[in-house]
Amino acid sequence: MAVKTEMGLEDLFIDTLKDIYYAEKQIVKALPKMAKAAQDPSLKAGFEKHMGETEVHIERLEQVFEIIGKPARGKTCDAILGILEEGKSIMEDYKGTIALDAGLIAAAQAVEHYEMARYGTLRTWAEQLGYADAAKLLETTLLEERTTDQTLTKLAEAGGDNAKAA
Amino acid sequence: MAVKTEMGLEDLFIDTLKDIYYAEKQIVKALPKMAKAAQDPSLKAGFEKHMGETEVHIERLEQVFEIIGKPARGKTCDAILGILEEGKSIMEDYKGTIALDAGLIAAAQAVEHYEMARYGTLRTWAEQLGYADAAKLLETTLLEERTTDQTLTKLAEAGGDNAKAA
Repeated sequence: MAVKTEMGLEDLFIDTLKDIYYAEKQIVKALPKMAKAAQDPSLKAGFEKHMGETEVHIERLEQVFEIIGKPARGKTCDAILGILEEGKSIMEDYKGTIALDAGLIAAAQAVEHYEMARYGTLRTWAEQLGYADAAKLLETTLLEERTTDQTLTKLAEAGGDNAKAA
Repeated sequence: MAVKTEMGLEDLFIDTLKDIYYAEKQIVKALPKMAKAAQDPSLKAGFEKHMGETEVHIERLEQVFEIIGKPARGKTCDAILGILEEGKSIMEDYKGTIALDAGLIAAAQAVEHYEMARYGTLRTWAEQLGYADAAKLLETTLLEERTTDQTLTKLAEAGGDNAKAA
């Protein structure tokens, strides 16, 4: 038990950093498929823009690993695998239907919310551990994920108008 | 393809309703374990309070199923299984350490964020489909999940002070 009780917030911070690093790498692979599937040009463009942002988020995480003096490594994240699996099912089940875009937006918002939860947590822990620069990087990504989520909400609301008009 | 193109937002709404219904039933089973594991009395009390709220969320979902004239049924939700699996790992890996509560809060916030994504989506779709009463029920739960998430953020921030004081 001696080793275990020595584990603290720093270990949890590193574990969670590895979790979101793995998650971001999965997301960057899923986004081109979502962009390809999207019917509405604004949604397609939104996914493409977010691909670029996600690459920057990965770079920021690598900077955080550097700040804490640890190698940038991922660790299988069951949560993102489950979330992306659901997105894949929606793409398959609703392919060729008028509800496909709505389903893609919902899948993307589940991804965004997972990231918002993790970045919020990591930002708070970075502050508590005295990693001010890391906290700043994590905060920047958190704000971008929030903005993406808000954009998706607007697209979801507009999607309803389109469906009514159709 | 004829059948597929007929699938629309109503089907997606029902599918997602089944997804969150299953998720809530998993959450209500996980919460007593999280409450038991929590060290800080405020966190323990928070999880216990949320158990009661989750039971009400399940009842509200049953009312939504009734409004749309469908039987209340769940559908395996890979996302929540992954999220809860990660929470379980944290409880095991950090048992007996000073970081356990921080890990439990992080796990709970991932759950809350998943629910916020789903309830936000469902509320928007209920409005678009003309289910005003269902939209109201979903909105009420959404606001409660948001409040829970904010409470957890405050506990996470206070947790850092405790760790420093220790």
